[in-house]
Amino acid sequence: MVQYKEVKAEILSIGDELLYGQIIDTNSHWISQELDKIGVRVVRRTTIGDSRASILEAFSSAEERADIILMTGGLGPTNDDLTKPLLAEYFQCGIELVPEALEAVRTFFEKRGRELTQINRLQAHLPTKCTYVPNELGTAPGMWFQENGKVWMSMPGVPHEMKKLMSDHVIPKIKEIFPLPHIYHKVIKTVGIGESWLSELIKDWESGLPQHIKLAYLPSLGQVKLRLTGFGEDMEQLEDDVEKEIQKVRLLIDKYIYGYNQETLQEAIGRLLKIQAKKVAFAESCTGGYISHLVTTIPGSSDYFQGGLIPYHNSFKNRILGVDENILKDKGAVSEETVIQMAENVRKMFHADFGLASSGIAGPGGGWAEKPVGTVWIACALNGKTHTKKLQLTQDRMLNIQLTGVAVLNLLRQCIEGKTE
Amino acid sequence: MVQYKEVKAEILSIGDELLYGQIIDTNSHWISQELDKIGVRVVRRTTIGDSRASILEAFSSAEERADIILMTGGLGPTNDDLTKPLLAEYFQCGIELVPEALEAVRTFFEKRGRELTQINRLQAHLPTKCTYVPNELGTAPGMWFQENGKVWMSMPGVPHEMKKLMSDHVIPKIKEIFPLPHIYHKVIKTVGIGESWLSELIKDWESGLPQHIKLAYLPSLGQVKLRLTGFGEDMEQLEDDVEKEIQKVRLLIDKYIYGYNQETLQEAIGRLLKIQAKKVAFAESCTGGYISHLVTTIPGSSDYFQGGLIPYHNSFKNRILGVDENILKDKGAVSEETVIQMAENVRKMFHADFGLASSGIAGPGGGWAEKPVGTVWIACALNGKTHTKKLQLTQDRMLNIQLTGVAVLNLLRQCIEGKTE
Repeated sequence: MVQYKEVKAEILSIGDELLYGQIIDTNSHWISQELDKIGVRVVRRTTIGDSRASILEAFSSAEERADIILMTGGLGPTNDDLTKPLLAEYFQCGIELVPEALEAVRTFFEKRGRELTQINRLQAHLPTKCTYVPNELGTAPGMWFQENGKVWMSMPGVPHEMKKLMSDHVIPKIKEIFPLPHIYHKVIKTVGIGESWLSELIKDWESGLPQHIKLAYLPSLGQVKLRLTGFGEDMEQLEDDVEKEIQKVRLLIDKYIYGYNQETLQEAIGRLLKIQAKKVAFAESCTGGYISHLVTTIPGSSDYFQGGLIPYHNSFKNRILGVDENILKDKGAVSEETVIQMAENVRKMFHADFGLASSGIAGPGGGWAEKPVGTVWIACALNGKTHTKKLQLTQDRMLNIQLTGVAVLNLLRQCIEGKTE
Repeated sequence: MVQYKEVKAEILSIGDELLYGQIIDTNSHWISQELDKIGVRVVRRTTIGDSRASILEAFSSAEERADIILMTGGLGPTNDDLTKPLLAEYFQCGIELVPEALEAVRTFFEKRGRELTQINRLQAHLPTKCTYVPNELGTAPGMWFQENGKVWMSMPGVPHEMKKLMSDHVIPKIKEIFPLPHIYHKVIKTVGIGESWLSELIKDWESGLPQHIKLAYLPSLGQVKLRLTGFGEDMEQLEDDVEKEIQKVRLLIDKYIYGYNQETLQEAIGRLLKIQAKKVAFAESCTGGYISHLVTTIPGSSDYFQGGLIPYHNSFKNRILGVDENILKDKGAVSEETVIQMAENVRKMFHADFGLASSGIAGPGGGWAEKPVGTVWIACALNGKTHTKKLQLTQDRMLNIQLTGVAVLNLLRQCIEGKTE
């Protein structure tokens, strides 16, 4: 077997606002995951403030430990941002205007109908030893250095800007420069089953996995991802091995699987609706627009999302959505009867194939003995039949909104696939 | 003036699962905030794996920089957890059974109806130089060391266990041991102006700030926070000094300020609507429910949020919301005329005081020369007058949704406050 030298990386997050806890650093976690996927070993993550001594010390000790040094933050146009001048100092070079970078900043502002300020022009001045990497989503450019067999990349701290630079530039360049082992990842996405129940169902399969394939459980809100990672030297063989294991485990947990890898639940639903050329509409009470928001974050969702109604104040459940007044009075807004009518009526109102509804007590106020905070009813109406489900969730408002969102989308998925329980 | 020696802290997070991105580290962010509140300056946060060399190196370099070293993780009962033996090695002492700790672990298991395993007994063996700190919520005890004027605390990585140890033990002890300065923070929250324009407007005020008050810019999506931090010995005086500066800067940027400290834009709007006993409704096209979702994450929003409509497919802008068919045909769905009717009609439909509307091309598809991706119209209808605004945003769908959300909420804020541009 080919021997690979372990490629090590260190991640630096720069900014007083991180150290003082004003901003939460999600970047280094995300970068860790991306490096892990391509077989680069993160050996350390360091967060330092806007201080010359700290940053320079972090540069030199990172260089001792790692082959790849990735940093975020400290690139703003204001004076307290030190990353750029200190990179120039560390690499013993000057800072000069890069016309291409100036053009990019100018275009960025022009598109937004704004004029370039003097401060923004400074963002186009870069250390002469760096390669300019365009940041299409912001004004602070990426800076790539390659010195003594090591690579350095400085990126802005704004997460979506950093992510684009990483995906478009950093990851491909690292793969090009360093000989990395073959790693094949596949993530199975499940919904509607908890981690411990899932692990019970698949424990025999899990203990029979071959040595070169590892399994990790990655639980999140209402969902569990199963990540299979295969290590080896023959990529085709590796893919085959992992796919074979996935075929085996599918037999055990098929009804909980909605997709693979990056696909989100709302993307999977979009895919299913497009295949069947079906349309959907939502009547959201306790979720207050959250589900429609999830669905409409997906490009092309206008192909299948007709629209939604949020009859938050109860009177509009009757006035606009036409829920029977007596049902609202006798059974209450949080009841099976109400969500059935909400789902059926929103389906008709928006000429949809599937009408979904949520109604519940998100909290923290509004609960009572019979219907405590966290009681939620959901429904999915299709032609001729309406499926309902009662959820008993938590005391936390945000969590209740999110968990209801997952449950509604899962009910929709089951209805589209014709696999209701 | 009393001279305080700056008290410095370093935070170590220990565990391979953090470095590989399998678990997100929320502990160090929380600890940063708690230390910041009491005037301890965090100088560095380091995440290292379960490796002897890394951990020992991190110990010694942290000791060089900081007076207080707080660490989490690496305390599990299994072999790959190294924090405890390495602390003993670092402080050159043995590890012995602490009967009090054994009693605590035994009780912990008894309460849960479980028997103590041999592995769990080992958790009651501690370095002889540490002070045992009981962990009421778990089985790994806290370990407190005091050596050469520095303090060290090792805590489990489970967030709620760590938080209880910090609040009950670490913070009070730090306050007792170190003479700390008084610190007063206040954050000014602004919206509708970019960082560079804001800094232009306040540059004279900024350069005239007294020595003991520091300013930081904290930009996020469509918003900028200004954090003022005052240091001193007389808390009352300090508050006065900071508040005086805030009064001065308010004169320069009043119309962009929506709140202070933790308050979010949607909370500020809730506060304003409650004071005036006014109600709001949203007609969301390109934002697809996002704004209603933001508003309904706030507890008590049912007091002022009447509801919303998402006429995503254009036909429903006419059929349900009653936008003039000819306007939709002649001017298009993304036009000033359309959002005016959407805002006015949703206001009537939901018996609201303010009716808000969004219509735009979120992308990535759907744009053309005249109306490229990122073109958005928004409107706010109130009694007798409707305010509109055209936005020219980005190529990124999610970003366009979020930036439109901020712009709509800001337009609503301006209308409630009667401060429209």
